[in-house]
Amino acid sequence: MPKISKRGKQMPESPIRKLAPFSDIAKKKGLKVYHLNIGQPDIKTPEVAINAIKNIDLSILEYSPSAGYESYRKKLTQFYVDQNVAVAIEDVIITTGGSEALLFAMGSIMDPDDEIIIPEPFYANYSAFSAASGAKVVPVNSTIETGFALPPIADFEKLITPKTKAILICNPNNPTGYLYSESEILQLGTLVKKHDLFLIADEVYREFMYDGDIHYSVMNLVGLEQNVIMVDSVSKRYSMCGARIGCMVTKNKEVISAAMKFAQARLSPPTVEQIACEAAIDTPKSYFDEVISEYRGRRDTLITELNKIEGVQVTKPKGAFYCIAQLPIDNADTFAQWLLEHFEFNGETVMVAPAAGFYSTPGMGLNQVRIAYVLKKEDLIRAVQVLKEAIRVYNAL
Amino acid sequence: MPKISKRGKQMPESPIRKLAPFSDIAKKKGLKVYHLNIGQPDIKTPEVAINAIKNIDLSILEYSPSAGYESYRKKLTQFYVDQNVAVAIEDVIITTGGSEALLFAMGSIMDPDDEIIIPEPFYANYSAFSAASGAKVVPVNSTIETGFALPPIADFEKLITPKTKAILICNPNNPTGYLYSESEILQLGTLVKKHDLFLIADEVYREFMYDGDIHYSVMNLVGLEQNVIMVDSVSKRYSMCGARIGCMVTKNKEVISAAMKFAQARLSPPTVEQIACEAAIDTPKSYFDEVISEYRGRRDTLITELNKIEGVQVTKPKGAFYCIAQLPIDNADTFAQWLLEHFEFNGETVMVAPAAGFYSTPGMGLNQVRIAYVLKKEDLIRAVQVLKEAIRVYNAL
Repeated sequence: MPKISKRGKQMPESPIRKLAPFSDIAKKKGLKVYHLNIGQPDIKTPEVAINAIKNIDLSILEYSPSAGYESYRKKLTQFYVDQNVAVAIEDVIITTGGSEALLFAMGSIMDPDDEIIIPEPFYANYSAFSAASGAKVVPVNSTIETGFALPPIADFEKLITPKTKAILICNPNNPTGYLYSESEILQLGTLVKKHDLFLIADEVYREFMYDGDIHYSVMNLVGLEQNVIMVDSVSKRYSMCGARIGCMVTKNKEVISAAMKFAQARLSPPTVEQIACEAAIDTPKSYFDEVISEYRGRRDTLITELNKIEGVQVTKPKGAFYCIAQLPIDNADTFAQWLLEHFEFNGETVMVAPAAGFYSTPGMGLNQVRIAYVLKKEDLIRAVQVLKEAIRVYNAL
Repeated sequence: MPKISKRGKQMPESPIRKLAPFSDIAKKKGLKVYHLNIGQPDIKTPEVAINAIKNIDLSILEYSPSAGYESYRKKLTQFYVDQNVAVAIEDVIITTGGSEALLFAMGSIMDPDDEIIIPEPFYANYSAFSAASGAKVVPVNSTIETGFALPPIADFEKLITPKTKAILICNPNNPTGYLYSESEILQLGTLVKKHDLFLIADEVYREFMYDGDIHYSVMNLVGLEQNVIMVDSVSKRYSMCGARIGCMVTKNKEVISAAMKFAQARLSPPTVEQIACEAAIDTPKSYFDEVISEYRGRRDTLITELNKIEGVQVTKPKGAFYCIAQLPIDNADTFAQWLLEHFEFNGETVMVAPAAGFYSTPGMGLNQVRIAYVLKKEDLIRAVQVLKEAIRVYNAL
């Protein structure tokens, strides 16, 4: 029998996927499972986008251009300009989700065995994209004590080698909910300039901020135009995760030209969903006001409730819709599985994402979980009550 | 300024893309350009598919499962079974186009520097996917003299090294239109079994055959279940190129498991387009009868007309909708560019794909072009007249 590839073997599995079989067990038992583990929002997709799909006027579902429809790229560029992110149409390639934008960015700037530094904990699929690209993730640790702020620049510098090609951040951050400040982004800018590195910023949660903060995009770093690559997506902005439409943005023409070759090889992003995304840009501001207000309420509820559990350590997230909570348990992997396999509290249980899967350093985050606040407030309250009871029972076992 | 990757630099550009700026020149001059260069059919997408999009009943455009919707995988499996291709639901991963299926297949079985043998001329993007995967294409030459039949097995054997992991074929073939016979597929089966290799077959043109031949899928190779990977797509079958929905099919569970990790990393294939594809499976047989009859007519017209040009060598293709024609000119690259930049015949010209871009061996196919018969018969007749005149003028320059 022919052998699969080393990278196929070594590709990490998502910390959530590993729990899926146990989630099935809980469901088979008829338990109600509160899903605190997922990034799929329950927010409705804007009507303008759904209507664009329903009113589609095509008799042939043709390829779109490899960089995406010109009309969509134009409108998207204007969308960024309106947000004070100076971008031109030729800086934008429409991709099949933010995922593909990351793959294009990594493929364009990294060869096998090149290194990319990422503050951990980080979105688990960054490891998978790196493995797929043959690149090596070098984690730099951020800690719950600082609320997962940017690690000291000296910590980054210690990790830079001749093989280092880039630093990757997610801002606002999944899984921590941390929002990097302008000052932190400027520090990173100085660092990548000094060492001639790329700075990739995954800004897919750029709209999700709750305390009146201003999102500082890497695209605004003056003098860093050749170093910076922004990754974005419609998944969270318009609750259109299934559209698989994102984009890669950079002013570096060599990177655009390399990424275009990856884009041309896969021919084009999806046609219908692009049309929906173009329409989605007309989503009224009131939609976002409601969404942000809803998430702010959910965040506040979640953090208030979590703080009622003795021994839980959690920082109020400033953006995205996740937080990392440290629980008074020995091992979150075992605990998360036990929650689904053996626990119930009045016919209910909760599913959380063990945080160890978001760390690349073995042994980190063992008693932490990522919680997504994508449930209604009353469900969040109930879910945390179930979690509290679970911790009590688990620790008494 | 930080440097892009070697692979980003070395990724080959499509032989068609290189001509795009010259096509713009011809259009700016107001010329009518007959596009014999493209694989975008003018055939209408089935109404059942378009209607499924128009009648979509979703308020949240959610992620689908990473392997694709279960209901779609089930219906697709039945579609294959009805075609005597024995496939089970767990053998099928829905991908974002056949392109992604190829990337998943290569990533799952090949590490950087591993080798894949492909009969040339071949679909140019195979080189790009290999470069993206870090793998190395080893071409085995097929010739216009044999109508691009499978090269002798001895030619493959000469190229097999410890780094060889797979053989890749496209059947029916783009760009040659050749349909591999059952006997040729069986020979390949014996070869990959002997050397413990994978056999990847891109079968995206499996419905496009014009002489009553039967398509022999690699999935039907008995005893080769662990070696064989099939790639398919809805792009050509339903004229849904823009849907970006394909699939990777194999009975090798290790490959499925590795490919699933790539699939999970990119989260899911597009939601709306999958719903359209599920509906498309109900396309009535009459649709295909009409399409095949139309293409058969186009093929016959094209070949008849091409044979009227002195010095043209072309074999009647059995499948897909391409042929490779050898022209009585010195260099098809120069000629194709000249057609767009300098030539016109009563306000018209033609665009062809120089075949050198489909060969991986330098210097091969220099006087050959790929012609796609995706135009109406009357346009094909006219286009070949223009081509004939162009050859006369070009050779008199």
